[in-house]
Amino acid sequence: METLSLCHLFRGLSEAQVARLAAITREVPIGKGQCLGHEGEPAKEFFVLKDGAVEQITKVGGDFELPIAMLREAGSSFGASGLVAPYLYSLSARCAEDGTMLVIQLADLQKLMEEDRAIGCTIMTNWATHLLGRLKETRQQLKIHFKCLLTSMHP
Amino acid sequence: METLSLCHLFRGLSEAQVARLAAITREVPIGKGQCLGHEGEPAKEFFVLKDGAVEQITKVGGDFELPIAMLREAGSSFGASGLVAPYLYSLSARCAEDGTMLVIQLADLQKLMEEDRAIGCTIMTNWATHLLGRLKETRQQLKIHFKCLLTSMHP
Repeated sequence: METLSLCHLFRGLSEAQVARLAAITREVPIGKGQCLGHEGEPAKEFFVLKDGAVEQITKVGGDFELPIAMLREAGSSFGASGLVAPYLYSLSARCAEDGTMLVIQLADLQKLMEEDRAIGCTIMTNWATHLLGRLKETRQQLKIHFKCLLTSMHP
Repeated sequence: METLSLCHLFRGLSEAQVARLAAITREVPIGKGQCLGHEGEPAKEFFVLKDGAVEQITKVGGDFELPIAMLREAGSSFGASGLVAPYLYSLSARCAEDGTMLVIQLADLQKLMEEDRAIGCTIMTNWATHLLGRLKETRQQLKIHFKCLLTSMHP
């Protein structure tokens, strides 16, 4: 319950609403090197980190792995992209340190969100807020590249 | 009504739900050069393009303007970032060709979404879907820069 309510996706839910989530959550151990999901593949599960560390990565040019984030904080999550079309993992995630994950089947989460629209609205608003933040960060990184390019053209 | 239902944010809403949106929408002419909103400023209005053209831009290094998108299709929109914290325009938008916009006060839209959770869920799901797509595109652009960098390091 406590770890679930730390997850950014579940911020603002009441205790009773988090209890409904807890009822569809199971706790599983994860080992270093274990993959939680592969970029571009159908997303079946949503993961919330309880302890340990998980690395989010994306492939560049087929073989080079570009690290996106290292999840270490309890409540960090992976797999929310499976909540919307095209229902795929948008990144890969690999366990970097032995730990424990809370796992929710995305089909169960979708069902709960449809049954309880207030939960659905809160989760989707939280997720859109998170995505907008990520989009801004990524645009910022792109701007840095443009700035370097501009400087190299007009030193 | 027809233009509103073309907007990606309102996809999947019933005719009755779109009618509720239409009731809080007003139609305004826009002139070439007119600014609809400035990046980083509090977002008050949500815009749906009826006709004309609107350019979305972001500033790099204070003065250089980086174009992000040119909106030409009826139903294209600007200002959804004002629906979530920190309630700011995430880009600037400037009219590139005289036209007509449908304008909804974001406070009115928020109120409608709270009153009618089904509308709220649909809009937020549509927006999260859109943001995830944008995030993937932007990451893809970043990957291209990384690839160029890798190639220049190991030609």
